Amino acid sequence: MNTKQNAEKPEIILTGDRATGPLHLGHYVGSLKQRVTLQSIHEQTILVADMQGLTDNAHNPKKVSSNILNIVADYLAVGIDPSKTTICLQSQLPALAELTMYYNNLVTISRLERNPTVKSEIQNKGFERSIPAGFLTYPISQAADITGFKASLVPVGDDQLPMLEQTNEIVRKVNSLAGRTVLSECRPLLSNASRLPSTDGKNKMSKSMGNAINLGATEKEISVAVKSMYTDPNHLMVEDPGKVEGNIVFTYLDAFHPDEAYINQLKEHYRRGGLGDGTTKKILEECLQDMLRPIRERRGEFLNDKAQLVDILVKGSQISREKTAEVLFNVKDIFGLNIF
Amino acid sequence: MNTKQNAEKPEIILTGDRATGPLHLGHYVGSLKQRVTLQSIHEQTILVADMQGLTDNAHNPKKVSSNILNIVADYLAVGIDPSKTTICLQSQLPALAELTMYYNNLVTISRLERNPTVKSEIQNKGFERSIPAGFLTYPISQAADITGFKASLVPVGDDQLPMLEQTNEIVRKVNSLAGRTVLSECRPLLSNASRLPSTDGKNKMSKSMGNAINLGATEKEISVAVKSMYTDPNHLMVEDPGKVEGNIVFTYLDAFHPDEAYINQLKEHYRRGGLGDGTTKKILEECLQDMLRPIRERRGEFLNDKAQLVDILVKGSQISREKTAEVLFNVKDIFGLNIF
Repeated sequence: MNTKQNAEKPEIILTGDRATGPLHLGHYVGSLKQRVTLQSIHEQTILVADMQGLTDNAHNPKKVSSNILNIVADYLAVGIDPSKTTICLQSQLPALAELTMYYNNLVTISRLERNPTVKSEIQNKGFERSIPAGFLTYPISQAADITGFKASLVPVGDDQLPMLEQTNEIVRKVNSLAGRTVLSECRPLLSNASRLPSTDGKNKMSKSMGNAINLGATEKEISVAVKSMYTDPNHLMVEDPGKVEGNIVFTYLDAFHPDEAYINQLKEHYRRGGLGDGTTKKILEECLQDMLRPIRERRGEFLNDKAQLVDILVKGSQISREKTAEVLFNVKDIFGLNIF
Repeated sequence: MNTKQNAEKPEIILTGDRATGPLHLGHYVGSLKQRVTLQSIHEQTILVADMQGLTDNAHNPKKVSSNILNIVADYLAVGIDPSKTTICLQSQLPALAELTMYYNNLVTISRLERNPTVKSEIQNKGFERSIPAGFLTYPISQAADITGFKASLVPVGDDQLPMLEQTNEIVRKVNSLAGRTVLSECRPLLSNASRLPSTDGKNKMSKSMGNAINLGATEKEISVAVKSMYTDPNHLMVEDPGKVEGNIVFTYLDAFHPDEAYINQLKEHYRRGGLGDGTTKKILEECLQDMLRPIRERRGEFLNDKAQLVDILVKGSQISREKTAEVLFNVKDIFGLNIF
């Protein structure tokens, strides 16, 4: 995180999550912790991206709809405060759909097909030529989100940088059409946390792969997940020297254990031999149980009061509807369409 | 026009024009006359498609915005009655943009690329690989228009049939997702009027080609257009026999002259020789001047009272906003997104 910017003036931050599953420890390390910090310094909006979630889940829409309130509960449970952060629902903001329609005319299909992030996602999802139009064009919809909120700073992983480049290309096209600055370019806020690997050390974390620890995971789920974690496959006997690099248990200890010095001692011990995986896993499990217990409890309380979660989304979406409508007005003005 | 349907029950008709230029005699023959008849029998909405007009004119938006009120004046001048026909502006109907976003997820890029109408338009416009995303996907936006108004009958030329096929494909997908009939398929209403050729007999009619006679054409413009009309290039001397087929003057006389028997006499005379192009053009010009004079005058009066035109669009768009919002609600329901 670039703290230099903070000292100067508050930024408008837009961030969010595709509503396609509950949030997990990867989200916690990669974005949620950062958001909790940012909400006290900047003007932060979190967009629950249900419409973007549908771009590759239209045939299984429950995957999206059933996760909306879960995600809001996740946010609150980790300390995102709706009095500091606006939490809103994408499908409640028609101006974003309308902005997308206008921007769609400024981006060519071949430009979209060159987007490296989309390219690799298309490969991962095995879409080949059967890409839904909504999926190929979702970078345009994302540009509508970012500009619709006048976001100046967008927290992203470096794999998402092409998305911001696409957004800024659209910004420049819109401004060039207008002959003046109507929209402002955004800057990425790269997290300095490295990406948390999945518990099996192989794939991207996902609930369906069973290799992620959700924020709402039960005590048992945490225990099972830690016990099945990938360590050093050559570390067969407790006495053997073990490898710390690529050992997921140590990666998670680095990410979550509060006592760095103690973890360094453990690493040395593990390297020279005499420290079993059972022991390191026990230490990690205790650490994760301690950390996740209060989050799980708060999450459960929030989910017991769904009316409150809905109310937070209603209020956040109302504020966001006004903000995004103003940007839509400015963009429609360029096209001469504010006739009445 | 299939009159059998009329006898049964009123249909919901959606029709409209891309707002990219003033309407001309081709529109009059191809759709406007039909609409004047339909408005007394059916529930007709005319959509002034400004957003669709932008899909290939985003870099010249004045071409769209400057024509919106002209087109409304054209409608009124030919007898479309806003108390019988709802006239609305596409950019005023956010539900259409939102529906498009949902439908975008149900149609693949390769399906869009196979659309014969879009294919030939891409060729005509010389887009090649630089097709704006909004242009390739406009059949989806059109499906949003048609279903957004629950249109059962859509007046089209036969070149537009693939658009309705695309719409009905989306309807079936939506219904299959819902497991019940949420949207209804539409049927084409094919005009029995043949397509009016351009005055040069060569190209598609367009203002920029100078080969169309606009509804608001001045007396002088009509005169110049008729005098320059393509006739029979081998009919050099008045005494020579002339060809009626492909002779644009006769095509226009067929389309516009009220006295069919008289035109048949003229055709015979022209065929056997002794009838000069100057004479046939004079007859056509008189006929067009008589027909277009009152239209031009009414058009001018309407354009002198722009507040009235805006008011018609405001009222029509208000009614249409409610109709389309209802359909959007039903579609969002399938995706489980009516949380609040």
